[in-house]
Amino acid sequence: MNRSSLGLYLVTDSRFCAGRDLVEVVVEAVRGGVTIVQLREKEADTRRFVGLGRRMKAALAPYGVPLIINDRVDVALACGADGVHLGMSDMAVADARRLLGPDAVIGLSVESLGQLEAWKDNGDVDYFGVSPVFSTPTKTDTAPPFGLEGLRRAAAMTSRPLVAIGGINVGNAAEVVAAGADGLAVVSAVMGAENPRAAAERLKGFLK
Amino acid sequence: MNRSSLGLYLVTDSRFCAGRDLVEVVVEAVRGGVTIVQLREKEADTRRFVGLGRRMKAALAPYGVPLIINDRVDVALACGADGVHLGMSDMAVADARRLLGPDAVIGLSVESLGQLEAWKDNGDVDYFGVSPVFSTPTKTDTAPPFGLEGLRRAAAMTSRPLVAIGGINVGNAAEVVAAGADGLAVVSAVMGAENPRAAAERLKGFLK
Repeated sequence: MNRSSLGLYLVTDSRFCAGRDLVEVVVEAVRGGVTIVQLREKEADTRRFVGLGRRMKAALAPYGVPLIINDRVDVALACGADGVHLGMSDMAVADARRLLGPDAVIGLSVESLGQLEAWKDNGDVDYFGVSPVFSTPTKTDTAPPFGLEGLRRAAAMTSRPLVAIGGINVGNAAEVVAAGADGLAVVSAVMGAENPRAAAERLKGFLK
Repeated sequence: MNRSSLGLYLVTDSRFCAGRDLVEVVVEAVRGGVTIVQLREKEADTRRFVGLGRRMKAALAPYGVPLIINDRVDVALACGADGVHLGMSDMAVADARRLLGPDAVIGLSVESLGQLEAWKDNGDVDYFGVSPVFSTPTKTDTAPPFGLEGLRRAAAMTSRPLVAIGGINVGNAAEVVAAGADGLAVVSAVMGAENPRAAAERLKGFLK
């Protein structure tokens, strides 16, 4: 996994689109500097998820921005996505790697330093999501936040790429990067912005 | 698809297990004559669904009873199931065939004679679920029932294997078979029975 491609990591959430088309919002954000997109659809049925994935993949292709699918390996395979992002209750990493092949990107969210310790040398994981760094309104079922100190300790434990997830915005992005994050995962800060392109541009400025 | 293997088609529903282990209930039903099992888990997360699929596959193997996964091609691939059963909002049949390969069993639920007409010559479908034949408490989001007359018309439209789904029990199984069903799909009539093995044995008696 190219570390720089994790830089500004957009996680979609159609709840923040407020009637706007999800793909159009994402493309605007990509024009503002988003480097990778994770399509996250916890409510959509499979048919709709695959259809949306195909539209997203086609829309991102001209920008060379990879598409990652949250959890669903079948959707990733059907729409030709670049990989999946997994949590601890999603498909097991080894199963996903077997089904997706060696070239797919596989990200894994760790919710504690103990989980990172257990997974940090696993060759099937391309990057780790450190989740959540801060508490967030987007997900309510999360573990206690790492905080900046937890993120620093995570970065000290491994040289593997780390994406900071949860509550990242322009107010804390500089500190999060300084604490050792290779990527900033954003949801509401971009998806919910009136101008997603401008929001992405501002966040992009905090990256190394 | 071997028509006789569709004979007594058990669709799981953990809500009817009442504290009993799902796999044990299914194995009892297989001892009573169930010929094929569809694992349907609309609420479980992916990790749990795959784990349950693996346990189910291992439990069914000694009986030579195929395991079909509802909707989730990724779960089917991960647990080595024999195929998937799809509805109109699940993955598209052509996508599922591409991902699962030529040997997998793919069933498709049709909810009207018009849908059957549109799909009856599709080479990727191994059997059709005629759904629902009767109204059922198991699924509440279904189309208007085919009824026995609708099932007869469906059977007259195609020589492809048909599985009757929805409200099938010992009180109507004989008529359903007479109307042209190759398979009887049952959920509550077996999963909810105090003695799943005996319930399956009774239903089995109505098959040709």
